[in-house]
Amino acid sequence: MDTVVKSANKEVIIGTERPVALIGERINPTGRKKLTAKLQAGDVEMVRSEAVKQVQYGADILDINVGASGVDEVIMLPKAVAAVMSVTDVPLCFDSHNAEALEAALKIYKGKPIINSVNGQEQCLEEILPLVKKYNTAVIGLAMDDKGIPPDVETRLKIAHKIIDRAGKMGIPREDIIIDSLVTTVSTDYRAAVVTLETIQRVNKELGVNQSLGASNISFGLPEREVLNFAFLALAVERGVSCRCVNVAKVRMNALSIDLILGRDRHALRYTRGFRQLQALLKTEQESKGE
Amino acid sequence: MDTVVKSANKEVIIGTERPVALIGERINPTGRKKLTAKLQAGDVEMVRSEAVKQVQYGADILDINVGASGVDEVIMLPKAVAAVMSVTDVPLCFDSHNAEALEAALKIYKGKPIINSVNGQEQCLEEILPLVKKYNTAVIGLAMDDKGIPPDVETRLKIAHKIIDRAGKMGIPREDIIIDSLVTTVSTDYRAAVVTLETIQRVNKELGVNQSLGASNISFGLPEREVLNFAFLALAVERGVSCRCVNVAKVRMNALSIDLILGRDRHALRYTRGFRQLQALLKTEQESKGE
Repeated sequence: MDTVVKSANKEVIIGTERPVALIGERINPTGRKKLTAKLQAGDVEMVRSEAVKQVQYGADILDINVGASGVDEVIMLPKAVAAVMSVTDVPLCFDSHNAEALEAALKIYKGKPIINSVNGQEQCLEEILPLVKKYNTAVIGLAMDDKGIPPDVETRLKIAHKIIDRAGKMGIPREDIIIDSLVTTVSTDYRAAVVTLETIQRVNKELGVNQSLGASNISFGLPEREVLNFAFLALAVERGVSCRCVNVAKVRMNALSIDLILGRDRHALRYTRGFRQLQALLKTEQESKGE
Repeated sequence: MDTVVKSANKEVIIGTERPVALIGERINPTGRKKLTAKLQAGDVEMVRSEAVKQVQYGADILDINVGASGVDEVIMLPKAVAAVMSVTDVPLCFDSHNAEALEAALKIYKGKPIINSVNGQEQCLEEILPLVKKYNTAVIGLAMDDKGIPPDVETRLKIAHKIIDRAGKMGIPREDIIIDSLVTTVSTDYRAAVVTLETIQRVNKELGVNQSLGASNISFGLPEREVLNFAFLALAVERGVSCRCVNVAKVRMNALSIDLILGRDRHALRYTRGFRQLQALLKTEQESKGE
């Protein structure tokens, strides 16, 4: 199943048999003091530079999150979106649960973005799905509700079904829903990855929709987190995850290698091109540091 | 299905639901001038030190290969095996196609080793399988024959079936056969990994035996080889590869992360212990370099 997202000039197709679409996660103030301060001051200069950098490193889509204390999302989300549209042409993903902020951004956006996200809570579905319908967007649906992330496969599946059913009743096509089966951490529950992987597999089989996978909580509290994240990503993609929110500069080669191993990269062209691109960028970065 | 291999004091169980067993590949003169020269001179000092080092880094089994021009395997294979037995207690894997050399090593070995390897060639089966039977060893069976590595899944499967049938007729139990589905390189055929992964899956389903996977040819000719190898390993293990010949010092954390993600590491104990072990070894190495 293909999910089509668009900017004014560019189309990105997310599909389970295609290479993984990478959503750049860096425009997000969580844990980043400098970006938070800039957003609090109404300054989107850093949003712009992060956008440009992530696209250079190979982001297919950019996530925009401006949620921080002291930041009015209703003002800053559209402002950040406009700033990013002015410097890049990749489709965007609006990362907020604030319906008013989302609508303000949707009004000025040129294209078909992703809304990130809804979950199984009634209030959330009632507030956000009408925007998905009205503005013809795609939407990420998290397999959780007001009780948090369910520990078992069945309950997560049930929530995924609920989100898709509810959207369907409102006339939102199934291909515009992207399910996130969610991860907890293997350091507190060593079967956490198994539960997520099984959920992904069943969502793929029973619902056939595209799937994303959020931040790398899987490895929280353990050493060598990138190694664990990579092993998990390979297995998740194979089972049906077709897009992912990531730090693109860090994990692009990992993602390209998984695509190549799964036979989704004819003649290894994306892999070798991606490698050369990365080398060139690292060289430029080093040179500018040397000056 | 469990394959049990033994040294005089130690038992290692290879099984498809267990953590991957790592076979240390470093006692092999291919591409190593210094080790080749030592073996040519009849000197096994370096064999001994490589054995100790690999076990420190977490090897479950050690592969012993002394094949090089100017080295008489019939003399040097048992000599190397004796040397390794004198310094470690992990089970061994005798890596040779020379039946006479294998028998000389088998005669002095205490335990149940692996013979690495047979393939579908008549001559090879006729020479090696009787040794497997006579000395009650396990054996790696490569899915290739005198025509080389078949490009397709079906022919590789047919060869795997042939090896197991022939062994069965000689009274060798199925659990003592470990099939290697073999890899070619994705740089010349971008579907090479897909063919191997499908073969592994079908061997697992149709034959149920343990499986190994040889050297990392998959990434030959491409940059960032370790990234590709890791992605491939994760998917291969998931499909049924239960032991692997590797440079243990380099890939142990990768292997441990795959075990953990697949729910085969209760409370992440092997992962965290392996990490601490590795840190301690790296520290010791640095200190001895600093002296």
